[in-house]
Amino acid sequence: MTTYSLLILPGDGIGPEVMAEVRKVIGWFEKNRGLSIDVSEDLVGGAAYDKHGKPLADETMAKAQAVDAVLLGAVGGPKYDNLDFSVKPERGLLRLRKEMDLFANLRPAQCFDALADFSSLKREVVAGLDILIVRELTSGVYFGEPRGISADDTPGNEGGRVGVNTQRYTSGEIRRVARSAFELARKRAGRVCSMEKANVMESGILWREEVQWVHDNEYPDVELSHMYADNGAMQLVRNPRQFDVIVTDNLFGDILSDAAAMLTGSLGMLPSASLGAPMANGRPKAMYEPVHGSAPDIAGQGKANPIACILSFAMCLRYSFDLGAEADLLEKAVEKVLADGVRTGDLMGAEGGKPVSTSEMGDHIVAAL
Amino acid sequence: MTTYSLLILPGDGIGPEVMAEVRKVIGWFEKNRGLSIDVSEDLVGGAAYDKHGKPLADETMAKAQAVDAVLLGAVGGPKYDNLDFSVKPERGLLRLRKEMDLFANLRPAQCFDALADFSSLKREVVAGLDILIVRELTSGVYFGEPRGISADDTPGNEGGRVGVNTQRYTSGEIRRVARSAFELARKRAGRVCSMEKANVMESGILWREEVQWVHDNEYPDVELSHMYADNGAMQLVRNPRQFDVIVTDNLFGDILSDAAAMLTGSLGMLPSASLGAPMANGRPKAMYEPVHGSAPDIAGQGKANPIACILSFAMCLRYSFDLGAEADLLEKAVEKVLADGVRTGDLMGAEGGKPVSTSEMGDHIVAAL
Ligand SMILES: CC(C)[C@H](C(=O)O)[C@@H](O)C(=O)O
Ligand SMILES: CC(C)[C@H](C(=O)O)[C@@H](O)C(=O)O
Repeated sequence: MTTYSLLILPGDGIGPEVMAEVRKVIGWFEKNRGLSIDVSEDLVGGAAYDKHGKPLADETMAKAQAVDAVLLGAVGGPKYDNLDFSVKPERGLLRLRKEMDLFANLRPAQCFDALADFSSLKREVVAGLDILIVRELTSGVYFGEPRGISADDTPGNEGGRVGVNTQRYTSGEIRRVARSAFELARKRAGRVCSMEKANVMESGILWREEVQWVHDNEYPDVELSHMYADNGAMQLVRNPRQFDVIVTDNLFGDILSDAAAMLTGSLGMLPSASLGAPMANGRPKAMYEPVHGSAPDIAGQGKANPIACILSFAMCLRYSFDLGAEADLLEKAVEKVLADGVRTGDLMGAEGGKPVSTSEMGDHIVAAL
Repeated sequence: MTTYSLLILPGDGIGPEVMAEVRKVIGWFEKNRGLSIDVSEDLVGGAAYDKHGKPLADETMAKAQAVDAVLLGAVGGPKYDNLDFSVKPERGLLRLRKEMDLFANLRPAQCFDALADFSSLKREVVAGLDILIVRELTSGVYFGEPRGISADDTPGNEGGRVGVNTQRYTSGEIRRVARSAFELARKRAGRVCSMEKANVMESGILWREEVQWVHDNEYPDVELSHMYADNGAMQLVRNPRQFDVIVTDNLFGDILSDAAAMLTGSLGMLPSASLGAPMANGRPKAMYEPVHGSAPDIAGQGKANPIACILSFAMCLRYSFDLGAEADLLEKAVEKVLADGVRTGDLMGAEGGKPVSTSEMGDHIVAAL
């Protein structure tokens, strides 16, 4: 078996706790399935700032560029809220995305049957929900120039300031993420819905035209529709199961994927993958992370649900290590544990019961393997 | 009684149908409450394009500037989807907002008790929901320059194009809409939550700082919190009743208010007001419109729910004509009709029953008055 290299960046808040459980899972695969992973670990976010004065050291960035995959926990926390913009924990994450050129962010919003009642939506609206949001991750208003805050004395704003960000997309940027979405749709229900605000933004018009172009020229077999992003937000709330794959830009993707994740009632369960161009070995550059954040309010208390991070590792097995069977095995183990009624605190209903700790959940999953 | 001037712009799709019912309501108030309104009517959106080749004639714009209030139906439809960006129906609406300087868009998301079961969310999550989104309406990425699509030959994009929009906010623009939000919160539960992406956008940092400044210097009695807009989308789905007033920018407001509206299950019921600076008479410049769109799929069939438009007129009575008692009366009449079980098609549940037409709904409301 090939030896794969994996860089683990636990980050802040509950990141280190949930990552410890992934370590157990990796240990199991090494012992029982002959998996050979060269694991290294480093700092990102506030943890990196505490040590290096910046949220991602250059050496860490270089390591991330060299490995087969990166697995990230979460970044941020109140301790870092007042740091200067340029060294905030988030900048570490954004630097990884940008410099690794991870343009396609895959965010599945899946409703686990055993957990459908946790959703704030009615069971009949979300049961069986399985949509995939493909979010462009390296461009748009997150990275566009010019940007910044400066003094501004225009009439009505005497002595004031002005804040500027730039939404900017090229044809090439749109086409490559559209291709990712169409490829993924082919392996799913074969439908892509593209979302923008082409009715008010020219960048949205270009988005729509380029997605349509890729469809017509390269993926005519996939069903393509277009929707304004505000209507998209409505439709996600009204009837999310109408969607298969949604493709959208960086900022809309940020908001819509969070709304979609919350629909499922299973936020602590949702993994994500951020993929770039193929490397020499043919697999894409990749970073995997849970959809949930660093949850500083419960950090260090053994309350966090490690499943999202463990399922992110399952995505890593599948997309970066080409080990589909191993990924299936891990996903099945998670399902079994849930079916057995094992629950961390975030999955406890009104009916009560005793939640398991982060570490106990990890043990259960390893046992189920 | 003063005579007020009202410009009615029915627009496209179901706009003319729902506006006809508002006319009935106006007629009742004129006959029975001595209300004196000088009503004029004109074209906007696709309807204006069909006649003038542009979605808002200059004369119409001038009329809108001169009246006490504008009442708009809805704009847009598939017939106009392929028009050039500069003459799309939406540009008519955006021109009204911009030139009248209607910077504060009030979008209540209220769950009517009789209709709570229409929500895709669980009754216990949305029953009694009453939040108010205050959306900045005249700036941000909707209007920022530079903007447009141009050729771009940068590496990776040879022979391609680039689409650009600019998110731009000044201190003055942020402060004035923040003041609107704080004023409104004082008359409600006294809480404002401001939403942006200050973790990735400098314009969001300025937004946060200026809202905080207005709070600390002018409204220290109101409770202020800040939330990232992606988390805001999540929290709206998870537990919308945690909010009282939400203040946010033009684009986030567009998306979040649509999601919030859909939570209520009462989209066909929700009015909105767009307010500007005070005029000579002390009342703000104002335009009122239903939150729903032009619904081309049901246009002309007598199926549309006129309540959102009628309640928009109630907001007009309250904010522009200073007729709070009349507004109350109209809102009560709507409640009575709903309590009596009168329903248009959009308010019919699985249990069935016979829906009333748009016009019958209007008649019921007039009868209830
Ligand atoms: C932490 C933050 C910078 C990030 C984003 O805005 O992209 C997060 O919200 C996400 O969605 O991964
Ligand atoms: C019709 C469109 C231009 C408009 C907007 O994007 O503001 C609409 O979605 C709204 O929210 O009023």
